Amino acid sequence: MVVILKENPEEKQLQNLMNWLSAQGLEINVCKGQHQTILGLIGDTAGVDIELIKALDIVDEVKRVQEPYKNANRKFHPDDTVVEVGGVKIGGGNFQLIAGPCSVESEEQVCGIAEAVKAAGAGLLRGGAFKPRTSPYAFQGLRGDGITLLLEARERTGLPIVTEIMDISQLPLFEEVDVIQVGARNMQNFELLKALGHVEKPILLKRGLANTLQELLMSAEYIMAGGNSNVILCERGIRTFETATRNTLDLSAVPVLKSRSHLPVIVDPSHGTGHRELVAPMALAAAAAGADGLIIEVHNDPAHALCDGPQSLTPEQFANLAARIKAVRAAALGGEL
Amino acid sequence: MVVILKENPEEKQLQNLMNWLSAQGLEINVCKGQHQTILGLIGDTAGVDIELIKALDIVDEVKRVQEPYKNANRKFHPDDTVVEVGGVKIGGGNFQLIAGPCSVESEEQVCGIAEAVKAAGAGLLRGGAFKPRTSPYAFQGLRGDGITLLLEARERTGLPIVTEIMDISQLPLFEEVDVIQVGARNMQNFELLKALGHVEKPILLKRGLANTLQELLMSAEYIMAGGNSNVILCERGIRTFETATRNTLDLSAVPVLKSRSHLPVIVDPSHGTGHRELVAPMALAAAAAGADGLIIEVHNDPAHALCDGPQSLTPEQFANLAARIKAVRAAALGGEL
Amino acid sequence: MVVILKENPEEKQLQNLMNWLSAQGLEINVCKGQHQTILGLIGDTAGVDIELIKALDIVDEVKRVQEPYKNANRKFHPDDTVVEVGGVKIGGGNFQLIAGPCSVESEEQVCGIAEAVKAAGAGLLRGGAFKPRTSPYAFQGLRGDGITLLLEARERTGLPIVTEIMDISQLPLFEEVDVIQVGARNMQNFELLKALGHVEKPILLKRGLANTLQELLMSAEYIMAGGNSNVILCERGIRTFETATRNTLDLSAVPVLKSRSHLPVIVDPSHGTGHRELVAPMALAAAAAGADGLIIEVHNDPAHALCDGPQSLTPEQFANLAARIKAVRAAALGGEL
Amino acid sequence: MVVILKENPEEKQLQNLMNWLSAQGLEINVCKGQHQTILGLIGDTAGVDIELIKALDIVDEVKRVQEPYKNANRKFHPDDTVVEVGGVKIGGGNFQLIAGPCSVESEEQVCGIAEAVKAAGAGLLRGGAFKPRTSPYAFQGLRGDGITLLLEARERTGLPIVTEIMDISQLPLFEEVDVIQVGARNMQNFELLKALGHVEKPILLKRGLANTLQELLMSAEYIMAGGNSNVILCERGIRTFETATRNTLDLSAVPVLKSRSHLPVIVDPSHGTGHRELVAPMALAAAAAGADGLIIEVHNDPAHALCDGPQSLTPEQFANLAARIKAVRAAALGGEL
Repeated sequence: MVVILKENPEEKQLQNLMNWLSAQGLEINVCKGQHQTILGLIGDTAGVDIELIKALDIVDEVKRVQEPYKNANRKFHPDDTVVEVGGVKIGGGNFQLIAGPCSVESEEQVCGIAEAVKAAGAGLLRGGAFKPRTSPYAFQGLRGDGITLLLEARERTGLPIVTEIMDISQLPLFEEVDVIQVGARNMQNFELLKALGHVEKPILLKRGLANTLQELLMSAEYIMAGGNSNVILCERGIRTFETATRNTLDLSAVPVLKSRSHLPVIVDPSHGTGHRELVAPMALAAAAAGADGLIIEVHNDPAHALCDGPQSLTPEQFANLAARIKAVRAAALGGEL
Repeated sequence: MVVILKENPEEKQLQNLMNWLSAQGLEINVCKGQHQTILGLIGDTAGVDIELIKALDIVDEVKRVQEPYKNANRKFHPDDTVVEVGGVKIGGGNFQLIAGPCSVESEEQVCGIAEAVKAAGAGLLRGGAFKPRTSPYAFQGLRGDGITLLLEARERTGLPIVTEIMDISQLPLFEEVDVIQVGARNMQNFELLKALGHVEKPILLKRGLANTLQELLMSAEYIMAGGNSNVILCERGIRTFETATRNTLDLSAVPVLKSRSHLPVIVDPSHGTGHRELVAPMALAAAAAGADGLIIEVHNDPAHALCDGPQSLTPEQFANLAARIKAVRAAALGGEL
Repeated sequence: MVVILKENPEEKQLQNLMNWLSAQGLEINVCKGQHQTILGLIGDTAGVDIELIKALDIVDEVKRVQEPYKNANRKFHPDDTVVEVGGVKIGGGNFQLIAGPCSVESEEQVCGIAEAVKAAGAGLLRGGAFKPRTSPYAFQGLRGDGITLLLEARERTGLPIVTEIMDISQLPLFEEVDVIQVGARNMQNFELLKALGHVEKPILLKRGLANTLQELLMSAEYIMAGGNSNVILCERGIRTFETATRNTLDLSAVPVLKSRSHLPVIVDPSHGTGHRELVAPMALAAAAAGADGLIIEVHNDPAHALCDGPQSLTPEQFANLAARIKAVRAAALGGEL
Repeated sequence: MVVILKENPEEKQLQNLMNWLSAQGLEINVCKGQHQTILGLIGDTAGVDIELIKALDIVDEVKRVQEPYKNANRKFHPDDTVVEVGGVKIGGGNFQLIAGPCSVESEEQVCGIAEAVKAAGAGLLRGGAFKPRTSPYAFQGLRGDGITLLLEARERTGLPIVTEIMDISQLPLFEEVDVIQVGARNMQNFELLKALGHVEKPILLKRGLANTLQELLMSAEYIMAGGNSNVILCERGIRTFETATRNTLDLSAVPVLKSRSHLPVIVDPSHGTGHRELVAPMALAAAAAGADGLIIEVHNDPAHALCDGPQSLTPEQFANLAARIKAVRAAALGGEL
């Protein structure tokens, strides 16, 4: 950590600061220039509250040098984490397609899609039971009944299921769920993250619309600090000025996250783009960029099109895409740069 | 609502769409051009799911004409809502300063600050008991004990208290709290919003870092749809590429929200800027722009500066500012444009 | 175009507007609702000034339905444009690697790199002669001398050259240049675009840091309206809140631009990410997403590393990457979705 | 400047870097930690190319401590710059209203508005002769003839005129112009900035839509490095995800710029918001925040409303606003915090 002092810092305050920093176990190197003094802090700064130091009158700025996350940090855990669930592995070279409907609507719908995506190569089934909706007047999901239907589909296909939690109070309903998803809007719902740190299930953590990659890793750190190290990171688009796509899918997140962390990284091209036509190119791109998996919306009834999101693929489109993804992954791995 | 169709829409799908729209009680006007057909939908479209229509193969785009919020909409409630709490009014020409420490730390601290800000003209006391922190290793607030200390300060000064809730499960602890704050990171925690719709207390709803003003109004609508119409909207800065300030305080939110909604609108220049030196100019600017109140961080112990945020004012600075805010409000109202 | 009127529009103003719109050759369909009236305008609206209509007191909002660009629009030119230069083709299934140093520094440097990238499969040579720099104190490029060195490198290798223009007054120096690049900061330098409309050379037009894809197409339209239809569009990252990468490379730009326009689309993963380690994954991703080419920085002297950007590859890294890109393109095209 | 090295830097490269830094006249302080080594560089780092250092294999990150601008820096020029033009002063406590039409259209129009805004208290006349337009098919301004009309209006009213330049080649037409405006899209047209450094006229430099405040100051530095120190900075809104306003007017730019620089800072609430109703509240807010002036669009013919931007005020609205702005400034200055 580097602390940049204001010109001519008040001597007594400076002494107080130095004493406080020493008391935190940090070694202080002072670099004195004509106009500026810099304190280089050596030691474990992850627990030091940067805001407290910034608040001091004599401090101009504080810059972190070390990442403030430990459990999620590749520096301290060089090997890839492999998340295992229901006999399926993600990370460490294991790639998975997670596919399924936007919302769970009926047994027929979810089981039909589950069978189709399994046949096309999906390793897990996704489906929304609790649906976060901007409008209180929009369909909020089948909730508990939706989870029951997902479990039914798992029973029939053997695919482990991934579904989103929206509040701690829903946890009891997730007992049989294989992977619990934390949606973008809840990425910094810290009480929920803490609770999920005590759950013995993999957590699929989606990046928030306005959150940096470091904040995503800090949210993973919340879960891991509680004892649950099975976190899957998911890039799903950030909010920018561009309106041609629903969000701006930030694929550089994949190599950045994988270099900083040992956790598996997957991409959601369906919500990240919001347009059916963009799902395939962005899925292929994510695979080429090194993602450990993809989560893709698939619907089963193109005729009765009033039931799915504008970004859902048909099972046929998904099967075609799955084959190409496999080929692209092999080609991209052709040699290491 | 305007539905723009793709060129040469498949006739049967178009008929299905028209039937479905009619079944929703909408009147359809068809504008047929050479390359494009537009459907103008007349009627109550607030409950129509825009995503469902977008998902249709024959639809190019859907544009809303009417706002999707009703309870929060000034069109249907032309008069300003006045929120009353503990004898204090906000909105409809009533301006309030809400001031207090970033975090509640001790009885001495919170009561000292409460007395100081009351003397300077604050109408409500703010203070964080539950603290949302990016890092799991940072101080998370005194939680329940913090609320007890705030109630103690209310007892001593008579100031109603405002403090943040982070999860539904904390609600029982907020029974004596006057105004419940929903922080920026929880603006789209829909389960929490629904729960607050059934509470008989004013809710101070902060705008999320990546949320549009329409989404803020939709979140207010969640609360109001549950029966609680005492919502105070709060602009606190959005996330942009600029790094000179912690966030970009979007003051045009004030006149935009006040024209679209009847709810009171306040501004948080402390978190919106993140720098002590910027709090006063932005507080004055917010008052000039027509805000119904301000929420400002004040700390009481400049010597022991390691305890407060970099954006906190001293009680003296706050008192000086309060006087200027009053003068600016009067000057800005000098005549209506 | 759809014009949404305010409630109870003043009758005379409405009549004036309707007359003016008719005079522009537009057919008007009126959809009257209880609270809102919508005018659906049918006809060629590309030349209609949307700002003028928005300025009217009776108008609430104006929404475009048709794209305001014609020459660049795929609707009117369904076939891919193939740009040909010096025997090399881009677009319509022809993929090109454009590689070379950030700045041209010496004959030895630029010729050495040119030979290396040619051997690795590059079809064009890039190199900066005029350098846009944020600081007036930073190296501004060799300017005219830099172009001479690039021509020398073309002489030796046969590779057509691409280099950036910063001002109309530099045009005479570009007479021998093969492809003129317009940098991100000049994407809306409209006088420059107009001048380039009268040049008989391909223009490589980079997307501005804060520009939408529609604005990029409008800037291409400026060039094409002048008579020069050889425009290559280039995605090179947009500015967002994320700081882990220099910019956020928006790869969905590739399929979006290719669906809206017939012009070739290339990607710059070097400037788009700003980090050497991210160039390869994002180059592979861009190829998988369907880009018609890539522009990549390559330097030749890793020992004397003080001369190139933090995002430059060595010739060896570039050669390895080029081979993988070829394989990824083939794999991604494996079947059409 | 602080250079953060990667773990276990290659010794010879480190020595090369240290030698090179010393050769630049910098003193180097080394802070060695267990995992990281930090170099604190003391001395004049404004001319050091940060990108070159970042490019080194052994370097993890480089962080600036000192601002890279000198001429524009308040640290080296503590007193406010006062720009004088045609008997009018801006900065150092002198506040000016700059008002006029969006585009110059006719003698009658521009002279009529000039007289009206002068009567209401404007100190300078603005008006667009060269108009930057997103579409090549939109009205591009009267160009040279527009400047002639502005000079005519100056002749009649005595108001100095401000108008925008779009290209170096237009400079001869600006000989009689009082203040040359550089628009947002040209803020980083470095060749134009350099040319304006050799002009003996004040330059009104608008912030780019995606530019940080530091970049704005660097662009001012370009002009000042050429010898022209009469630069007026102008905040006019940045591009964000919010769509309720045309841009997000960043009023914290005012106190931030004024603390970092001695140059006058003005605000453009017309283009910053894009809506007539928002101009007054944001103008008042800008004045309260400490701006040295405002630039506001005024049109003269509300009946023939098809000629002005949706953000233009009538002369009456402007006169009312001018009076309130004066009162707000006085109130805001009531006491220094």
